[in-house]
Amino acid sequence: MYDGPIQDLIAQLSRLPGIGPKGAQRIAFFLLDADLSDVEALAQAILKAKQTVKFCQVCFNATEDDICRICRNERRDHSQICVVEESKDIIAIERTREYRGLYHVLGGAISPIDNRGPADLHIRELVQRLGDGQVTEIILATNPNTEGEVTATYLSRLIAPLGVAVSRLASGLPVGGDLEYAEEITLGRAFEGRRLVAGGGN
Amino acid sequence: MYDGPIQDLIAQLSRLPGIGPKGAQRIAFFLLDADLSDVEALAQAILKAKQTVKFCQVCFNATEDDICRICRNERRDHSQICVVEESKDIIAIERTREYRGLYHVLGGAISPIDNRGPADLHIRELVQRLGDGQVTEIILATNPNTEGEVTATYLSRLIAPLGVAVSRLASGLPVGGDLEYAEEITLGRAFEGRRLVAGGGN
Repeated sequence: MYDGPIQDLIAQLSRLPGIGPKGAQRIAFFLLDADLSDVEALAQAILKAKQTVKFCQVCFNATEDDICRICRNERRDHSQICVVEESKDIIAIERTREYRGLYHVLGGAISPIDNRGPADLHIRELVQRLGDGQVTEIILATNPNTEGEVTATYLSRLIAPLGVAVSRLASGLPVGGDLEYAEEITLGRAFEGRRLVAGGGN
Repeated sequence: MYDGPIQDLIAQLSRLPGIGPKGAQRIAFFLLDADLSDVEALAQAILKAKQTVKFCQVCFNATEDDICRICRNERRDHSQICVVEESKDIIAIERTREYRGLYHVLGGAISPIDNRGPADLHIRELVQRLGDGQVTEIILATNPNTEGEVTATYLSRLIAPLGVAVSRLASGLPVGGDLEYAEEITLGRAFEGRRLVAGGGN
């Protein structure tokens, strides 16, 4: 349909997550209309990030340095480690401003269907971080889906005997949501995790 | 939140049409995880398209050559010109396999709100193409929205006196759609453009 380079560009863009053929075409024509300097800046940003970003030697968060900013920050609470599947989960948690401890990025979740077991994740390195006795709590923040739950269960059994508290993020109704539209497993979890707010005698 | 190059990449990706901050973050981490050769291929495709693609000297379609494939094709009907707003509209029309004539890309539509008048579009060049008397029909295929309709009305008034037939794509119910859910202007157009299918006496 198109001549070579436009077709190539559309094909390359279509491979990115969340971009379908129509979206790729729209972006391709947007780039053809854009200023050359803007397009070069995009291509440079892609190459630069790929070339300079590596993973923190302690927690495996994406960073430009050997040790990431969070691990280096002395003002954070080094007694807590929040375990997440991916670097981007850290952003979501940081945005809440609720947590001041450290992180550990597993690099995914246990998933037999994808042939990914505990040995494929940064679990050994997590256990090593518990060796010096400084850490007193591990917060399991893997995703609330099957793989995330399996991974959380595996980690809690592995870590509990080491004398470190292990907690899991609460599941329940999303704030601002509508009970009527809550999906049944979430609603079930909300019942399971209900909290006494008044009375009750004790 | 992130260190420099990741943040830069996310910011650059967020500027693309149809990509929000979450999508940009997802693509950024996808690229960090991807093979270096794939990432380089993407950056190259972006630069190559930008550097080599230009616009057809006749119809302003995007092309690698001075004259695009469609204008060069002797087997197409050179007596018809279908007028579209953007190069990508040509793809949509070509996909129908209903049309074998030529095209003319205006480069947008008349839009006072965006400060874009007839002089900012390739309208003068369209009129010039009618000069040799080879073209007998102009098909106005600008978008069925306010700007597209204004542009179509402007062009039909401009071209009709030149003795060339001017037609407009039909508006009506989308095939496979449901009358109940048709938006009222579309339904009104469907009535306006109704066709006698049987009887009627003449």
